[in-house]
Amino acid sequence: MPTDKEIATRSRLRCEIDVTPAFYDIDVMEIVYHGNYVKYLELARSALLAKFDYDYPRMRESGYGWPVVDMRLKYVRPATFGQRLKVEASITEWENRLRIDYVMRDAQSGQKINTAYTIQVAVDMRTREMCFVCPPVLWERLGVEP
Amino acid sequence: MPTDKEIATRSRLRCEIDVTPAFYDIDVMEIVYHGNYVKYLELARSALLAKFDYDYPRMRESGYGWPVVDMRLKYVRPATFGQRLKVEASITEWENRLRIDYVMRDAQSGQKINTAYTIQVAVDMRTREMCFVCPPVLWERLGVEP
Amino acid sequence: MPTDKEIATRSRLRCEIDVTPAFYDIDVMEIVYHGNYVKYLELARSALLAKFDYDYPRMRESGYGWPVVDMRLKYVRPATFGQRLKVEASITEWENRLRIDYVMRDAQSGQKINTAYTIQVAVDMRTREMCFVCPPVLWERLGVEP
Amino acid sequence: MPTDKEIATRSRLRCEIDVTPAFYDIDVMEIVYHGNYVKYLELARSALLAKFDYDYPRMRESGYGWPVVDMRLKYVRPATFGQRLKVEASITEWENRLRIDYVMRDAQSGQKINTAYTIQVAVDMRTREMCFVCPPVLWERLGVEP
Repeated sequence: MPTDKEIATRSRLRCEIDVTPAFYDIDVMEIVYHGNYVKYLELARSALLAKFDYDYPRMRESGYGWPVVDMRLKYVRPATFGQRLKVEASITEWENRLRIDYVMRDAQSGQKINTAYTIQVAVDMRTREMCFVCPPVLWERLGVEP
Repeated sequence: MPTDKEIATRSRLRCEIDVTPAFYDIDVMEIVYHGNYVKYLELARSALLAKFDYDYPRMRESGYGWPVVDMRLKYVRPATFGQRLKVEASITEWENRLRIDYVMRDAQSGQKINTAYTIQVAVDMRTREMCFVCPPVLWERLGVEP
Repeated sequence: MPTDKEIATRSRLRCEIDVTPAFYDIDVMEIVYHGNYVKYLELARSALLAKFDYDYPRMRESGYGWPVVDMRLKYVRPATFGQRLKVEASITEWENRLRIDYVMRDAQSGQKINTAYTIQVAVDMRTREMCFVCPPVLWERLGVEP
Repeated sequence: MPTDKEIATRSRLRCEIDVTPAFYDIDVMEIVYHGNYVKYLELARSALLAKFDYDYPRMRESGYGWPVVDMRLKYVRPATFGQRLKVEASITEWENRLRIDYVMRDAQSGQKINTAYTIQVAVDMRTREMCFVCPPVLWERLGVEP
């Protein structure tokens, strides 16, 4: 069972954004093309990391690249043009890799559109080598302990 | 152990295409943006299904939509602008859902770039209902038995 | 010289949206890829037409498609990741074709990023024929006279 | 009237590529989304410049960036999923700026799909300043005189 502190940490390490599919996101079936949800994940992840002052430009300044090494999306129901969506992103691992979990919902009904996760690892930009433990800068920014 | 017939079927249900990342596929890190590989999967899947006369327009004519319900990509090493890649796609399930597995490699060295799979289910376009068993038209086109 | 009524019409037929370039919009030169601004035009056009209850789904209901037949973009200065932009879209022709002019600016300094226009013509969706005069539904929605 | 030498130069400074619209390029109207043709221009331009050993990586090595400063597309007829297209790109100016003209045609009938041009200017990557005359490296690669 998670401690109170763990619960507080988890609830702090999250962020929710609004997304509305654009005309160019929709395919001939009149639903969002499955590959375009990846962009919505990016927007949510970017907002979440910006909240901790560690979005892409800050990552770079810290000397680390954070390539995505694993990504999975499960599609529950389709979204369409102009539908208002909520994308919630939560940091769920930060020790050896940065895992973010996502839930996308219809903004009005709360019905689930899809769920996803991405896993990123730190790459030292000087040596181009992958780090098997996340660099301390991540923990400092997130205010967590490894 | 797979029978000879099973081995023959598996080797028949595959296809390989050439892809070369374009300038607009590359991000600031000078590698293919992770979301853009989804397009390469689409190209390989489309070529594979066209081989069996069952690509998107034929699917539609047959009365079924085939939305992607699950997708996973594992990124092994980055690809970059102008690098020649091979994307191999293989149909690995066709009974209740259509699963396609992908391996992307550097064309020259054969080094793995990433692996992926997509799972699609049939949706009857008249009723808008999901089919829990693939429609016979899929098996006929692929020349397989459920 | 435009009449007061003309000035009032022009000022009514406009809309401004906020756009912030995402990571996937940026190229290796660390600026927005020139082709991606086309998406920002789409977002502004879509918001503008929605204001007059004539965005894409309403167009379709009215029996007309409105393909873009001419598009031009002039790039003044580059935009980058996370930069807040304003995109202003104005309807400047509605008699025989729908012309929309765009100005994109840095939200803070007001410096011009680029200017653009798109020209759309109505296509009757039953006959698939292009209309050489805009259909009255456009004028009614916009509250203008041809 | 152009001289024989001019005619020979013009015919040398061109390139043609094959493009087939993918599923993700098609919109709800079942035609290529107008913004996606910009990618086809990029592919043709990239192939043309590669022919003269001056595509993006070589540009960068030469110390110049070449941002697009003006782009225009005129859409004649729509293209659709799986349609084979030819995109011809020709260098038509190289003195003060690099202008490339494009014609996109149906591969079978030769019917025009659209025409376009892009104009790029050189930017000195050390000073970040725009060059009002193209740098000699362009002329050397193209084998032309300013």
